[in-house]
Amino acid sequence: MSVRKIVADLHAELVRYNLVVWTAGNVSGRIPGEDLFVIKPSGVSYDELTPENMVVCDLDGNLVEGEHAPSSDTAAHAYVYRNMPDVGGVVHTHSTYASAWAARGEAIPCVLTAMADEFGGEIPVGPFALIGDDSIGQGIVETLKGHRSKAVLMQNHGVFSIGKDAKAAVKAAVMCEDVARTVHVARQLGEPLPIPQDDIDRLYDRYQNVYGQRSPR
Amino acid sequence: MSVRKIVADLHAELVRYNLVVWTAGNVSGRIPGEDLFVIKPSGVSYDELTPENMVVCDLDGNLVEGEHAPSSDTAAHAYVYRNMPDVGGVVHTHSTYASAWAARGEAIPCVLTAMADEFGGEIPVGPFALIGDDSIGQGIVETLKGHRSKAVLMQNHGVFSIGKDAKAAVKAAVMCEDVARTVHVARQLGEPLPIPQDDIDRLYDRYQNVYGQRSPR
Amino acid sequence: MSVRKIVADLHAELVRYNLVVWTAGNVSGRIPGEDLFVIKPSGVSYDELTPENMVVCDLDGNLVEGEHAPSSDTAAHAYVYRNMPDVGGVVHTHSTYASAWAARGEAIPCVLTAMADEFGGEIPVGPFALIGDDSIGQGIVETLKGHRSKAVLMQNHGVFSIGKDAKAAVKAAVMCEDVARTVHVARQLGEPLPIPQDDIDRLYDRYQNVYGQRSPR
Amino acid sequence: MSVRKIVADLHAELVRYNLVVWTAGNVSGRIPGEDLFVIKPSGVSYDELTPENMVVCDLDGNLVEGEHAPSSDTAAHAYVYRNMPDVGGVVHTHSTYASAWAARGEAIPCVLTAMADEFGGEIPVGPFALIGDDSIGQGIVETLKGHRSKAVLMQNHGVFSIGKDAKAAVKAAVMCEDVARTVHVARQLGEPLPIPQDDIDRLYDRYQNVYGQRSPR
Repeated sequence: MSVRKIVADLHAELVRYNLVVWTAGNVSGRIPGEDLFVIKPSGVSYDELTPENMVVCDLDGNLVEGEHAPSSDTAAHAYVYRNMPDVGGVVHTHSTYASAWAARGEAIPCVLTAMADEFGGEIPVGPFALIGDDSIGQGIVETLKGHRSKAVLMQNHGVFSIGKDAKAAVKAAVMCEDVARTVHVARQLGEPLPIPQDDIDRLYDRYQNVYGQRSPR
Repeated sequence: MSVRKIVADLHAELVRYNLVVWTAGNVSGRIPGEDLFVIKPSGVSYDELTPENMVVCDLDGNLVEGEHAPSSDTAAHAYVYRNMPDVGGVVHTHSTYASAWAARGEAIPCVLTAMADEFGGEIPVGPFALIGDDSIGQGIVETLKGHRSKAVLMQNHGVFSIGKDAKAAVKAAVMCEDVARTVHVARQLGEPLPIPQDDIDRLYDRYQNVYGQRSPR
Repeated sequence: MSVRKIVADLHAELVRYNLVVWTAGNVSGRIPGEDLFVIKPSGVSYDELTPENMVVCDLDGNLVEGEHAPSSDTAAHAYVYRNMPDVGGVVHTHSTYASAWAARGEAIPCVLTAMADEFGGEIPVGPFALIGDDSIGQGIVETLKGHRSKAVLMQNHGVFSIGKDAKAAVKAAVMCEDVARTVHVARQLGEPLPIPQDDIDRLYDRYQNVYGQRSPR
Repeated sequence: MSVRKIVADLHAELVRYNLVVWTAGNVSGRIPGEDLFVIKPSGVSYDELTPENMVVCDLDGNLVEGEHAPSSDTAAHAYVYRNMPDVGGVVHTHSTYASAWAARGEAIPCVLTAMADEFGGEIPVGPFALIGDDSIGQGIVETLKGHRSKAVLMQNHGVFSIGKDAKAAVKAAVMCEDVARTVHVARQLGEPLPIPQDDIDRLYDRYQNVYGQRSPR
């Protein structure tokens, strides 16, 4: 399946899991072996996305192919691809619960085994950064480089998630909102019980290695 | 596409984003070049709306064309069109989170970059006003005239949003509920971090000008 | 349209508005001119309801027509029809927010104009009552007879709503959950502003009379 | 209908009631008269489940039939079947509200008649247990053996539910999330009223016996 088709189709997952409203969220995927990535066009609704209307950009975020302008978040995606060579997919959303943690500038504590599996610990907060230059991209990379978490809560803004490919980045965005919501709900009526660091490490290690070698859950 | 079709179709967005239950919400759109607007008929469910059963009113809210009575909120829509010549679309909903802020008579503070982009600051509260005369329309116009926000929380009532056309007003209604929910959730567990006024101004300016000149997000 | 078809179809509204899970909610409608009503069969999922598998009961709740047993809540519906001759429809749900107010035994205060329109004031609480005899029916009738509200929050249980026909009772159930949710959300972050009793009376009077004489909203 | 088809189809109920995201939840069903059970394959999305791609395991959790690896939660399902001969179905989810109670290690108190009917009292908490051996299965069995509740909140993890067959276990998972949510919402604004133990017993007895002998609700 072409990266154009994969990226176009994956936007349906953002809609299915209520991570986006209107056109406020986007998926991109690196084209293997080239310094290019496919991203959502700006101002096109999720219902209308097709492999054909996706746009292709180089790693400086310049439009290479496509009739529409690329997503207004393209610079941030490009910065991540330029600076994290192992990343093959990037997702951006303003999903409700994750953005609420981001509005308070508060990391999501790891109090669920599913968080330990997927994120290996807390989901961290990145800096407040304005759109228009590389500030957002820098904030993402500084926060996630060397961190187990594949998602970052950009302060007062929303979520960026990364993965080895676009599908993995979408999975991280979906799981991020899911755990953001569950931990929020848990904390509304008291303090969640902590999971010992050793157990978090064991769960993460198993999920990424032993388990991961067989097949994705 | 005719204004009748545009207005009929846009009601599906209110349903899609869960902004309405039963028949309690409506969209209208000004007919370009005429002192008329198209609005939802009263008592017709969202499933049954068609270009043909939309109704046309003059700017005093009198029925000009249509077999059904116009929405019971027509007077408020008409007052806005009469007094805000640049407004081409009006939307009314009782969407949950926005109406909750309205029930407390509390403006939604601008703590998300998406709010700064779309609303340029807080979403303000309008007065408590009874249906039956121009009170609601006056409250909307007094609150929104000269204000950056395209949405107003009418106290103890719900949301009215405006735009250059019906689609823009629907977008404002969708974004209003989205940020009302996210800021509500953020505040449930503490205080969201403020965004400096300078940064709000910069974001709003960019989104409305630089960004807007290319294409809608 | 036959009462069987009306009642079968209206269950889809309970599903659409997320008022029910599994098979835990039911609609009934009086057959005009006869001492009979149509009600959901027990243990049939919402997907499988048809005019043909609805069951007909007399006003003592005895099965008159149908191959399935009637809903386990039939005795309560029957008691209402026996004791409130103007009621033509009854709905029962465990919808989340209304049931949460019911679990605390707390009436929903009238702080939204939509509540004043539809319910004319607060939505009251009925007694704790066990299934198995007329206790639930009695609790409903004692609470709603002479009350403006068309819905009652049965303590620790859920909602019963009534109307001139089955559709009106479903509308009351939908609006009850909608206002239960909005007022809940409002109160999570402070106290909603009260609406003066005079204004509640004016809104209710207009909605039930002036407005009602034209057409339903 | 074959157990393969029943189990494949029942996953749609987890999706319908929003109990799962991505692939994080699974249903299994015992094959009558054999020491085998059918379970979801690992890493297959809910949209793609068919009777044919379900997998069959023995009661030690070894794969007996199927081209995919069984769910990563298979050991826990197998332990339950091995140690609770009356159990014919097992379901695992991370549904939001139930998992929030689990994150705090707090049982859900029985303050709704629907809980008394289905669970006969509180929904209990099981121990924190790591995946990889029989710890999770042991925690489930220790908690549920001899308990009225058909669901257990595994600490910091999620829900396991059981039933006489797969459908009953799915019903328990659906009802568990429903009451977890309603009781959570109730407690957000105060303390729910308790239901006297005698009344809980009467409701449970009626629902399981008198009522159950006629037909399922």
